[in-house]
Amino acid sequence: MSKKILGIDLGGTSVKFAIISSEGEIQEKWTIGTNILEDGKHIVPSIIQSIQEHMERYGLTKEDFLGIGMGSPGKVDAEAGTVIGAFNLNWRTLQRLKDAFEAALDMPFFLDNDANVAALGEQWKGAGNGEANVVMFTLGTGVGGGIVSGGQMVRGANGAAGEVGHITVETTDPIPCTCGKPGCLETVASATGIVNLARKFAEEYAGDSPIKAAVDNGDELSSKLIFDAAKDGDFFANHIVDMFARYLGLACSHVANTLNPSKIVIGGGVSAAGTFLLDKIQVFFNQYVFPPIKDTTQLVLAELGNDAGVIGAAQLVRLALNKD
Amino acid sequence: MSKKILGIDLGGTSVKFAIISSEGEIQEKWTIGTNILEDGKHIVPSIIQSIQEHMERYGLTKEDFLGIGMGSPGKVDAEAGTVIGAFNLNWRTLQRLKDAFEAALDMPFFLDNDANVAALGEQWKGAGNGEANVVMFTLGTGVGGGIVSGGQMVRGANGAAGEVGHITVETTDPIPCTCGKPGCLETVASATGIVNLARKFAEEYAGDSPIKAAVDNGDELSSKLIFDAAKDGDFFANHIVDMFARYLGLACSHVANTLNPSKIVIGGGVSAAGTFLLDKIQVFFNQYVFPPIKDTTQLVLAELGNDAGVIGAAQLVRLALNKD
Repeated sequence: MSKKILGIDLGGTSVKFAIISSEGEIQEKWTIGTNILEDGKHIVPSIIQSIQEHMERYGLTKEDFLGIGMGSPGKVDAEAGTVIGAFNLNWRTLQRLKDAFEAALDMPFFLDNDANVAALGEQWKGAGNGEANVVMFTLGTGVGGGIVSGGQMVRGANGAAGEVGHITVETTDPIPCTCGKPGCLETVASATGIVNLARKFAEEYAGDSPIKAAVDNGDELSSKLIFDAAKDGDFFANHIVDMFARYLGLACSHVANTLNPSKIVIGGGVSAAGTFLLDKIQVFFNQYVFPPIKDTTQLVLAELGNDAGVIGAAQLVRLALNKD
Repeated sequence: MSKKILGIDLGGTSVKFAIISSEGEIQEKWTIGTNILEDGKHIVPSIIQSIQEHMERYGLTKEDFLGIGMGSPGKVDAEAGTVIGAFNLNWRTLQRLKDAFEAALDMPFFLDNDANVAALGEQWKGAGNGEANVVMFTLGTGVGGGIVSGGQMVRGANGAAGEVGHITVETTDPIPCTCGKPGCLETVASATGIVNLARKFAEEYAGDSPIKAAVDNGDELSSKLIFDAAKDGDFFANHIVDMFARYLGLACSHVANTLNPSKIVIGGGVSAAGTFLLDKIQVFFNQYVFPPIKDTTQLVLAELGNDAGVIGAAQLVRLALNKD
């Protein structure tokens, strides 16, 4: 029987676990809450304890596993297996995850940032269809990204490859980004970005629209409300979605002109808008991409949803151990 | 004694050859003219003949070589070893170079496009300093590019990776590109691009300038004339160089935000403007790049000049034969 892999997706509110076959099939999965109190010092022990409990429950020992893979928020050093600056975990100082997990569980442990791991999952078993050259854009609160080239994760000189959310897409009238630079894709093409666009356009729009009214009244807005209004034909909402799609199409064209991947996968919570959004991105992508690439780089929606992280974490182990 | 490699850089006016050690040292080099008459059908036979003559002259046999590497203009299929659409060679139809060379010389033959091969040369023995993640922008008549990631050439799904000259850098008032899409980097940051910028700015500039006068008189302009005038303090020329540098800095930022290479190498004829140009590109790059990448992706000038092609061709052989 071929060995299993333990995939872990560490997030600010929950930790997702899966026991996955070497072929990428999820055999068991479970979730625990993330206890971020006291500088997040309970996180690692509670994950280790949960693994031990579940291994016992399923009658598994370390010999049944190739290893453990994990995706984490924050700045990850994949080689050292450390994380720093994961603020939604209250991890401000360096966390030596590889050392802690290998000491406690005596299995090989591999770590990467959550956006890279999600990209690896979609590339392996999701919309990327196992193809060698796949890029993922994850549209959530911010915009993350991950690049697989020649079947391998691209990390770059300092682990900052795939930071597609910080591609500059607006130079004339840019919105400041939390990273300190104005005009990032993230300021216009994320859950917060689409609300930024709504606020900006509300100032110059004189017509009627429930979305404009919500902005003017200071009501809470979400990407879902805006996309739903756009689907219902609201002019104001459609203009915002068009701006959103234009910026994303432009950023996707930059990545395609650079890497010519077979697929660019659009995922994350905001991509729930589905083909309505994808079709609009495609229009602008076609306008901005090198013509020979238009026909060979395909824009597609993510397929694995919340499982991308645990499946990508398993693939991280396979790649590191050369089991591909 | 370790084996040698034959590196060939095929161009529209000349073919450059070098016999190179496995460590990348040029031991012999020579050049022949490119005879593009009769649909370029004399090109391959004349290259083969020149190789045979020089092997004889130096007392070398095929046993002395690991293989032959070549960079070619046009659309290259690296796997098949074929070229199509190399218009400056009059090669409109498919040319089966690998088959022809291996049949005539009985040595392994590897092919890639000239921009990729130049990037490989600079990455291995030039400004890239042998580092694993290096991108090159070649500023010539057009703008070419090549990407080395994890020590390997990135070719993408259809061989179109590295087409950084067709990154869209102007959407408001774009200049049409020969590729069929407006606003490409190549329309503003190449030898022809800088003249495009001069023409555009001449229409709105009322002051005195020898460059503006040359545009208005229909005199021939070159990137060298414009850069020289800018270095002399000419306001008009400096404005053009600033626009040129802004577009290049923006495109370099897109590539850096995507790949975080340790070096972006600026080469090609136009880069003869040297640090005067590089310093200006750096200003705009800093403005548009994700802050953590600013400190880890360095902009540098190419170092190998005309030798980049033959040295990169040799590295192509080493990578293909896993001699790295």
